[in-house]
Amino acid sequence: MVVPSRPADLGAPEQDSEQVAGPTVSGGEASAATGEPGARPFDFRTVVVEHVAPELDDGRYAIKRVVGDTLVVEADIFKDGHDLIAARVCHHGPGDDDWRRAPMALVDNDRWRGAFPLDQIGCHTYTVEALPDVYRSWAADVGKKADAGQDVTVDLLEGVRLLRQAAERAAGGERATLDDTAALLEATGDQQEALRLALDPILIDLVLEHADPALVTPYDRELQVQVDRPEARFAAWYEVFVRSQGTEPGRGATFREAERRLPAIRAMGFDVLYLAPIHPIGLTNRKGPNNSLVAGPNDPGSPYAIGGPAGGHTAVEPALGTLEDFDHFQQAVRAHGMELALDFAIQASPDHPWVREHPEWFYRRADGTIKFAENPPKKYEDIYPLNFYCQDWRGLWRAFEEVILFWAERGVRIFRVDNPHTKPLDFWVWLIREVQREYPDVIFLSEAFTRPKVMRALAKAGFTQSYTYFTWRNEKQEFAEYLTEITSPPAAEYFRGNLFTNTPDILPEVLQRGGRPAFVLRLILAATCSSVYGVYNGFELCENRPRPGTAEYYADSEMYQHKLWDWDRPGNIVEVVALINRIRRENPALQLYDNLRFYESDDPNILFYGKATPERDNMVLVAVNMDPSTPRHSWVNLPAGEFGLGDDEAYDVHDLLSGARYTWHGRHNWVRLDPQAWPAHILRVNRG
Amino acid sequence: MVVPSRPADLGAPEQDSEQVAGPTVSGGEASAATGEPGARPFDFRTVVVEHVAPELDDGRYAIKRVVGDTLVVEADIFKDGHDLIAARVCHHGPGDDDWRRAPMALVDNDRWRGAFPLDQIGCHTYTVEALPDVYRSWAADVGKKADAGQDVTVDLLEGVRLLRQAAERAAGGERATLDDTAALLEATGDQQEALRLALDPILIDLVLEHADPALVTPYDRELQVQVDRPEARFAAWYEVFVRSQGTEPGRGATFREAERRLPAIRAMGFDVLYLAPIHPIGLTNRKGPNNSLVAGPNDPGSPYAIGGPAGGHTAVEPALGTLEDFDHFQQAVRAHGMELALDFAIQASPDHPWVREHPEWFYRRADGTIKFAENPPKKYEDIYPLNFYCQDWRGLWRAFEEVILFWAERGVRIFRVDNPHTKPLDFWVWLIREVQREYPDVIFLSEAFTRPKVMRALAKAGFTQSYTYFTWRNEKQEFAEYLTEITSPPAAEYFRGNLFTNTPDILPEVLQRGGRPAFVLRLILAATCSSVYGVYNGFELCENRPRPGTAEYYADSEMYQHKLWDWDRPGNIVEVVALINRIRRENPALQLYDNLRFYESDDPNILFYGKATPERDNMVLVAVNMDPSTPRHSWVNLPAGEFGLGDDEAYDVHDLLSGARYTWHGRHNWVRLDPQAWPAHILRVNRG
Repeated sequence: MVVPSRPADLGAPEQDSEQVAGPTVSGGEASAATGEPGARPFDFRTVVVEHVAPELDDGRYAIKRVVGDTLVVEADIFKDGHDLIAARVCHHGPGDDDWRRAPMALVDNDRWRGAFPLDQIGCHTYTVEALPDVYRSWAADVGKKADAGQDVTVDLLEGVRLLRQAAERAAGGERATLDDTAALLEATGDQQEALRLALDPILIDLVLEHADPALVTPYDRELQVQVDRPEARFAAWYEVFVRSQGTEPGRGATFREAERRLPAIRAMGFDVLYLAPIHPIGLTNRKGPNNSLVAGPNDPGSPYAIGGPAGGHTAVEPALGTLEDFDHFQQAVRAHGMELALDFAIQASPDHPWVREHPEWFYRRADGTIKFAENPPKKYEDIYPLNFYCQDWRGLWRAFEEVILFWAERGVRIFRVDNPHTKPLDFWVWLIREVQREYPDVIFLSEAFTRPKVMRALAKAGFTQSYTYFTWRNEKQEFAEYLTEITSPPAAEYFRGNLFTNTPDILPEVLQRGGRPAFVLRLILAATCSSVYGVYNGFELCENRPRPGTAEYYADSEMYQHKLWDWDRPGNIVEVVALINRIRRENPALQLYDNLRFYESDDPNILFYGKATPERDNMVLVAVNMDPSTPRHSWVNLPAGEFGLGDDEAYDVHDLLSGARYTWHGRHNWVRLDPQAWPAHILRVNRG
Repeated sequence: MVVPSRPADLGAPEQDSEQVAGPTVSGGEASAATGEPGARPFDFRTVVVEHVAPELDDGRYAIKRVVGDTLVVEADIFKDGHDLIAARVCHHGPGDDDWRRAPMALVDNDRWRGAFPLDQIGCHTYTVEALPDVYRSWAADVGKKADAGQDVTVDLLEGVRLLRQAAERAAGGERATLDDTAALLEATGDQQEALRLALDPILIDLVLEHADPALVTPYDRELQVQVDRPEARFAAWYEVFVRSQGTEPGRGATFREAERRLPAIRAMGFDVLYLAPIHPIGLTNRKGPNNSLVAGPNDPGSPYAIGGPAGGHTAVEPALGTLEDFDHFQQAVRAHGMELALDFAIQASPDHPWVREHPEWFYRRADGTIKFAENPPKKYEDIYPLNFYCQDWRGLWRAFEEVILFWAERGVRIFRVDNPHTKPLDFWVWLIREVQREYPDVIFLSEAFTRPKVMRALAKAGFTQSYTYFTWRNEKQEFAEYLTEITSPPAAEYFRGNLFTNTPDILPEVLQRGGRPAFVLRLILAATCSSVYGVYNGFELCENRPRPGTAEYYADSEMYQHKLWDWDRPGNIVEVVALINRIRRENPALQLYDNLRFYESDDPNILFYGKATPERDNMVLVAVNMDPSTPRHSWVNLPAGEFGLGDDEAYDVHDLLSGARYTWHGRHNWVRLDPQAWPAHILRVNRG
């Protein structure tokens, strides 16, 4: 249905004259309706439809929503002259055979708006179409002329003609209504009676329903919206290495043993249990503790060195158990009300089966050897990167699709993707589209801490969620600017920042320096600024020892060695985590992504922001002391009007952390935050 | 060369494997180069190229420039992994057979920039392409490894392979250089010598010139820039009714008589002489003086009621003379250093020949009569509108094309188009493209005082210049906002506001009320805010009597009656007009459109702005008292740094109106403006 945005050459008029449609005002006949939006024989636009929103890079990529959302669509729509216009949002879901239509209405200044519900997971298509509303224009003019006392005898005959033309396009009772009204109009000698008949609003709508399809102009792009399940937008993630979830020193836990940890994880309120890679780990050049070059005989190696004698990306590391043990573990996770996320890391150890089976998928050096990963002068000899530009790139791409489908068939519906920015962007466009066509509920999280434009491009390519720079934003101003950027349009149309407080590779300096108060404040920021956030195992224990000589790596990381945790370690914030996740669950405002708003506060360390539901039936304000070392106090400035509060109105705020209740007034209120007690208020606003 | 923005289905690998190109790093061979930008067998992007600027509505419409300009093109360009990238602007002019290429360089944050000169009038095409710079990436890595003391023997063999592959794509001396270097590299046993040879910057550039074309990814749109002649951007217009340029009461002047006025018009410094319609005027329902319904026998009628016994749009009103007289007049205009602009008004009087020859081009009523123009309850019975949606719309469109071509063949190259917003937008897209294909130097001015989006759409459709809301912007703040909007991107990419102080239909209230000082200040605003502006005949005489009972119409308008002017009327501003036009001619900064910047001033009536050339070799500051009734004074605040002036620097400013010279210092300076003397300073900045 896409039409050229510029008219074609006129061609020889004789040849094309059969296709020519009638005039606007007389509503001449043209080709039959086909049911497609904008089926039309014109090769010029009867109505201009442009600047449709939301629209991502001119329709090159899909915007994102969650099932149950309503998609509001706007467009600039206008035409030459003074004809009235009708416009509609056209849309179809992934399973629909036909387009559905929702009416649009003029907002102002040639901007129109319509909406339709997103009632199904998957990729929906939408566009806009418009047409001159010929009969309504005629009716408006004839009404004005009659009001001015002018003779409208001939005008009424034109109305009869328009009604008859509409009747020819209608059927059944509607056809009869149109024909009968035309006959009455023609027969009556009473101009008042004729006007009453002709200008009946229901009749005017009926004629529009049977408008000449030749007059319809569609927008010249079809746009897409990826509708995800609710967990794409609202979830709390917990990242673990399965092997570290046990109790026996000197060896890793199995899937069966790790199941015992599930009640405690669920008690903290997490929704997604994300596992570092579970595949066989390579032996060749295996890394030892603290990323040392030589592994001891009992060292388990990095799970990111994927592939060994037991198999590659579709196998399970024997030390963890069997595929059946994995299945059992997944069932147990589900039984505890959580969902599993797997790590999808596209790289191979030198022992990966593909090295033998498909050496053509790797980079070969001039001496015939396979090239290991390097970032000169640094070498990563336990990893072979794959060559996405190789001769058999189609075979390689399909192999990775099959990996995802393998796990999807076993029930996995969430994949956290390691380093996606080192693979071609169009690989992701293709892979995510193909997988979601078969499993529309699959969620992909992009682990890319790279340049901003690359991160945005990955989100546009289809990643459901994205890692962010949250981890490194600590100053009030930069924090507010960055979080505003990623939660506002245009980013919010396609980018869902999953705010991780820490990862196996990132122990941020603020946690090293700030201790327990820093852990609590970073947790509160992550959990209340975004609807989707995550922590990596050990965060709740306030683990913060860096590996000596590194800026942000953990000392004695479980990445390279067997590890046991004391889950009741003194000073832990397990109860705080559970409380925060309960607050998120009980406050719908915290479950939305694009409703974060920052407000003014006087103190340069106190950050003040709020989230509310569109209906304003849940309103949460958060004040955070960004300095974990010192109590701070400040006036905070709420634009009360935005919350529907009067400037002098008194209202209760309930601190969901401490349980305290305060009475606030209008815009200016005072907070004091001691990090040793609570570095933040999370205030639910209760109106009279 | 447009490639899909999403990869196609992979298809059956067997079928497509012939098309598969080699890996990035090894620079595998693929199809032969074709010379088209981005000829490539991949169906995915090796490099991502997006957000190209300038770009108008994703390439649907052309941006505008003037011959001699340099087009600066930017794009976001990045790829997976760490390969270095090369990028180019690809462009071809209207007469070029092949694409030309200009290199792009990284600015920062994945933004790249390149430029090329616009050396020819007409429609140019441009886009961007990028590719991994395989050899340069290899060279950077091998250099780092060598610096770190690592063995690079195998790496050098890879370099040899890359050189040999490039040689196969090269010819002649370049092929020999590449082959010879490869051989030397292979033969030498000296690693230092090998590195010196391999990392030679000239060699690295040469290899890029012969890169594998299969690796090139083009941007997925071709964009267009309409390059106009300089007069499209810089000109002063003067609008006249030819018949009022005479001296004999009771009858209109002829072309021959009107020639006598040309020296005086040229002495005022105008470049374009724009004539109200010169075609035969209808007799049926002809309007009388002051738009009265009945014309007397000697009343000449409105020239917008086009068509009579003597012909239609390709004829000349007999009272003005013959077509030969018109030709003579046009020669005389040219001899006086000016250029003619004709009015193109698409409407017909009931006496237009087309009413008989092509009744199917008009709107017919149900009783068979042709419909006159109306805006119920108002009637315009001397005008028949044409139906652009009629059955024979192609015939009608072509007829108007032939009208334009008729006058273009007689040498006319500027058309001011009356009411373009009442015709389909795509008619203009088509007509302007067709006309400019034959006569690339034709300029179209859009007379549309309608809704903002419609005005912008007409400019995008191809109109060279546009009327604006300038005439109705009088308050300092709204004036600065509006002028900023139309002279800044995105509008400035396609919209050139021709600021008319008045028109035959618009005698703005400020002129009625403010008298001579208002005329001077509005002239200065029009002539210094935009590089293209116009006045309508009588402005220089301070004619400001409104027709009683109307808001903005002239009393006794020459639109409907014979008129004589006293060209030396006391209080006229003829000398001021001449001075202003001389100032424009002598100051290149005033000849550019998009360099207007508004600055702060304390007084709410004093507007302060500046224009400078990009090289800062001409800098003009203007302070205007917007209140024509009262002297005002104010501090004005120049961001001196933008002009390359130090905050404490002293500099001379020369008032080009009064001739006075002042010494200003840094940012803050003081002005006093008495409308009875000069309501403005036009200050040329002279640096030490």
